[in-house]
Amino acid sequence: MGEKSEIKKKYILDKARTVFSENGFKSVTMKDIVDACEISRGGLYLYFSSTDELFLSVLSSETEEDDEETITAALTGTATAGDMLALFLKEQKKEILRKKNNLTVATYEYFFANKLAPKDNPLKDQFDTAVRIIERLIENGIESGEFYCENPLGCARNLMYVVEGLKITSKTVGISEEAIDKELMYVLEGLVPDELNINDD
Amino acid sequence: MGEKSEIKKKYILDKARTVFSENGFKSVTMKDIVDACEISRGGLYLYFSSTDELFLSVLSSETEEDDEETITAALTGTATAGDMLALFLKEQKKEILRKKNNLTVATYEYFFANKLAPKDNPLKDQFDTAVRIIERLIENGIESGEFYCENPLGCARNLMYVVEGLKITSKTVGISEEAIDKELMYVLEGLVPDELNINDD
Repeated sequence: MGEKSEIKKKYILDKARTVFSENGFKSVTMKDIVDACEISRGGLYLYFSSTDELFLSVLSSETEEDDEETITAALTGTATAGDMLALFLKEQKKEILRKKNNLTVATYEYFFANKLAPKDNPLKDQFDTAVRIIERLIENGIESGEFYCENPLGCARNLMYVVEGLKITSKTVGISEEAIDKELMYVLEGLVPDELNINDD
Repeated sequence: MGEKSEIKKKYILDKARTVFSENGFKSVTMKDIVDACEISRGGLYLYFSSTDELFLSVLSSETEEDDEETITAALTGTATAGDMLALFLKEQKKEILRKKNNLTVATYEYFFANKLAPKDNPLKDQFDTAVRIIERLIENGIESGEFYCENPLGCARNLMYVVEGLKITSKTVGISEEAIDKELMYVLEGLVPDELNINDD
């Protein structure tokens, strides 16, 4: 693909992202994308043949940003495990609370309608990657004596299911930043050896 | 409302429940309900004036079934706290795995589109009630020496956010019964004093 085509494709993906974040996935048509891009129908179909294809492209351009390289870099840094885990959770929290350009509802709507096999499902991929990162951070924290945990994988999965629970709750019931902090702190405090746990209650 | 009207209304709600569980909320129209009920449009509007009203009625006829009376009865029974907590979680699991007449997706779609104030939001109500029950069960278990837990409310909330996470995961990525068991057991094992925990790993 030529450079001009690449630029055009990226332009379409940017516009589509906005449309999906404002309207979800289910009710968005190719015409909506055409209108948002102010291009011809033929111009759009040159690059994408369906809203399904468009949405998956938007989603994958998304996940590339926080790919494993970044993560490995973070894991080999000089910060403590506790700091890094807190940083990771801060990112999750920011995503949950993000108002503008938020793809959460569109993502749910897409996957309600499209059942993908586990190996092709980018959501499963994201979840499993996050669990692996947290597990590693907990293990690092155990080695350095910051954390105490008998089952790092179990704790990592518990934390990520809580994050999923917070994410859907924020879209159906609404949730405050304080409430998110409280849930994440509950898990983090469980990792801190009793003698260090000043917030024990 | 006369008895005949009550029967008719219940008939419409039953049919609407099926339509919502098969198609979600967002794309369902009053005509879909008219068709499913095989009644006239006027016949439907006599009872309900919108799919919003219909859906909330379906949802509230739902929650009445597991109302607090049932719960209080369960809480004052002779079973151990551990047994009752396990029973409660078995019900949650059954709901997550339920294939037929499952309103989960429709419920998400309804609340994505309709932001209700916390005090009017039946989902928030359900969640808070569940948290209160689990907290009470944990407290009972602590009293009887079955459980050890420093923060029953925190643990109850953690468990319910995990349940929410499992629920949305089952609709987007898919989840096995074994995977659900693993997550719930992780929390339950955390409640059992170390000397009793044969599954410690």
